[in-house]
This record gives sequence, structure tokens and C-alpha cells, in this order.
Amino acid sequence: MADRERARSQVSWVPDGRVTRTLREASNGHRAIVVWVTGLSGCGKSTIVHAVEEVLFRDRRRVYTLDGDRIRSGLCSDLGFSLSDRTENIRRIGEVAKLFIDAGMIVLAAFISPQRKDRQWVRNLVGEEHFLEVFCRCPLDICERRDVKGLYRMARAGEIKNFTGISAPYEEPDCPDIMLDSENDSVDVNVSKVIKLLNDRGALQL
Amino acid sequence: MADRERARSQVSWVPDGRVTRTLREASNGHRAIVVWVTGLSGCGKSTIVHAVEEVLFRDRRRVYTLDGDRIRSGLCSDLGFSLSDRTENIRRIGEVAKLFIDAGMIVLAAFISPQRKDRQWVRNLVGEEHFLEVFCRCPLDICERRDVKGLYRMARAGEIKNFTGISAPYEEPDCPDIMLDSENDSVDVNVSKVIKLLNDRGALQL
Repeated sequence: MADRERARSQVSWVPDGRVTRTLREASNGHRAIVVWVTGLSGCGKSTIVHAVEEVLFRDRRRVYTLDGDRIRSGLCSDLGFSLSDRTENIRRIGEVAKLFIDAGMIVLAAFISPQRKDRQWVRNLVGEEHFLEVFCRCPLDICERRDVKGLYRMARAGEIKNFTGISAPYEEPDCPDIMLDSENDSVDVNVSKVIKLLNDRGALQL
Repeated sequence: MADRERARSQVSWVPDGRVTRTLREASNGHRAIVVWVTGLSGCGKSTIVHAVEEVLFRDRRRVYTLDGDRIRSGLCSDLGFSLSDRTENIRRIGEVAKLFIDAGMIVLAAFISPQRKDRQWVRNLVGEEHFLEVFCRCPLDICERRDVKGLYRMARAGEIKNFTGISAPYEEPDCPDIMLDSENDSVDVNVSKVIKLLNDRGALQL
């Protein structure tokens, strides 16, 4: 009985970890933040964020990329592309991004995320000070000509439904933190713009 | 047109990040791994993993804790406690753990996870070499007496359905990597056992 009471007294509910986000940021030497890149399929957003990730990693920042390939094949493999499924997709991604922020990391998120309300939901979830919106702008006809995954061809042939820009809407950001021009600018230029944004907002230092 | 062709040639699909898990592990100086702690509600698993997290963090390991409080309030707030919802809950947690492993981190996961097949599913998902199963053993009557969240009282009163140990099954691990005795051992003893397990398996060095 004494043993049991002893054991019981040793357990208490820990609602929050003792290793807080603030402690992690201090250890990392930079802030925890989401850079959310939105744009049409094929606009180059995934290429850009993976290049940004490489720059930040080499600079010893704690950084991780979330993109459609990683999420749609795993966490959201049960979801389709209806507007409601897209909302649930972005909700889950937002919740995962929140965990990575709590872990003190820079999250690079590259998702079409066509609905303004869904992007706003993530911003509210993680908090204004932890969210930067980047609009990767590229005209539909350029994305369609690139068609790196062959998806536009399939969408035009009716083999894919609810394809953003073809058979489903895309709502451009009203007021993104920066806009990238992936029609005319090189990947390197766009990477520099994202790094500059992080610097300008004081995210890369404490 | 020249501009367009130039832009097009600059974009290529990046199926996997160039910053691989192996590069991250090398940078961190330790392996990426999930320590999955299973046990009844109130067995002390969350307390133990948060204490393990603190030890590892102070030792400058890259570590993050996933537990019921963090996941049920966010990513899985749409799920209940039926067996199928529990399976989906563990599936999503497994997918999130896989992302954190890909990010090079040590993941401490504390979940009742009552079904053997669900835990096995996570093991298969992240890969045998990235998964350690810890059984946090504590008799039901002790957990119920502690009742730190008041949930057992509610379960006995019928106010909570599908409560593990009361009105829903718990399947003990057949062959866990270690077993913790949270009835008789202190939190410190159990923390040391988890750290020793990580050391024994070579997870804390490369």
C-alpha cells in the first residue's frame, strides 16, 4: 500500500511539455515559423521551398518541408480533391505545422491551398506571428505547358476531376507577405526573396 | 516566349527533398527514431516521456513529444474513441511521427494505443529500425485510484463510453523493447530505463 501511494504521488498530469517552444527557439538561435507557399500546380513552389530548405539547412537552421507529395501519400491519403476534402487536407497540414512550430522549427509548406479561408484558418491556428504567406505566381498557361507531372493533360482529358485552374477554383492571396514571379524569375532569385523575407521579419535570429 | 521557355526549363519536379534524413541525422549527431510508449490511461506514460524529453533536450538532442493532449485537441479533434476511430487516430499519429523522423528527430510518443495491430502498423510504417516499443505497465486498479484527469470516475458513471480498461479492451504488447513498472518504480527510474534503451540501441550516437 505504501508502494502504491508512493507511486501515485509521483505521477502528475503534464498538460504542456516543460521543453517549451521558447526554449527550443533559444537553443536553435532562430524563431519557429511557417512559410506557407500557395500557387497553382506546376508553378514551381515545391522546387523553390526545397531549395530554400537546403540553404537554411546548410546555414544550420532547423527546417523541414511539408508538401503535397509528402502529405497526400501519407497523412491525407484518405482524402480526395473536393472542396471539403481540400479543407480537411489543409486543416491537418495546419495542425502538423503547429506541432513543428511547437518543436521550434522553420516549416516550409508548399501547397496549392486554393481556398483563401483555409489559408486564413492556418494563419489563425498557428498565430499571426508564426505565419508568412508567399504567393508563387505563374500564369495558368505556363503551368500547363510545363506540366511536369502530366496532370494538366489528364485534367483536360477529364481523367482528373476538381483540378485547380481547370475544373476547380484558385483564389489568389489578397495581401501575401511576398509574391514570387516564377514565370520570369529563376529559382535562385525566388529562393533569395524567401530568405530575405525571413530575415526582414527577424525570423533567422532572436 | 524566350522568357517562358527559360522559366519552364528552370522548374523540375523534386520528388524527395535534397536534405535527406541521413544528412539531418549527421547534423544532429544522433539517429531519428520513435519511442512509442503504450499503456492504460493514468499509467504515467505522458509524465515519463516529458521527463525523457527534458533530459534529451538538455543533452542537445533534437526531440519532440507527441501525446494525447497535443493530438486529440488538434489533428484528431474530429475523431472519437470507437475502435475504428482509434485506428485512424494511431494511423495519423504514425504518419506525423514518420515526418518527424524524416526531419531527423527523436519522437517520444505516449498513447494508450490499445490495439496491437495499430502499433504494429506504425512500426511497419516508420520501419523496424526507427521504432522502439515501450510498455508502461501499471495495474488498472492503481490507474483508477490515481485518476489524475477524473476520467475513470466518469467512465464508471457511464459518462464516457469506450474507455480503455473499463469499457474497451487493452492489448498488452507481446514483446516490447522494454517494460516500465510505473506501479513500483519512480519516474526517475523509468526515465533512466528509456535513456538506457536509446543508448543500448545506438540511437544517441552515429
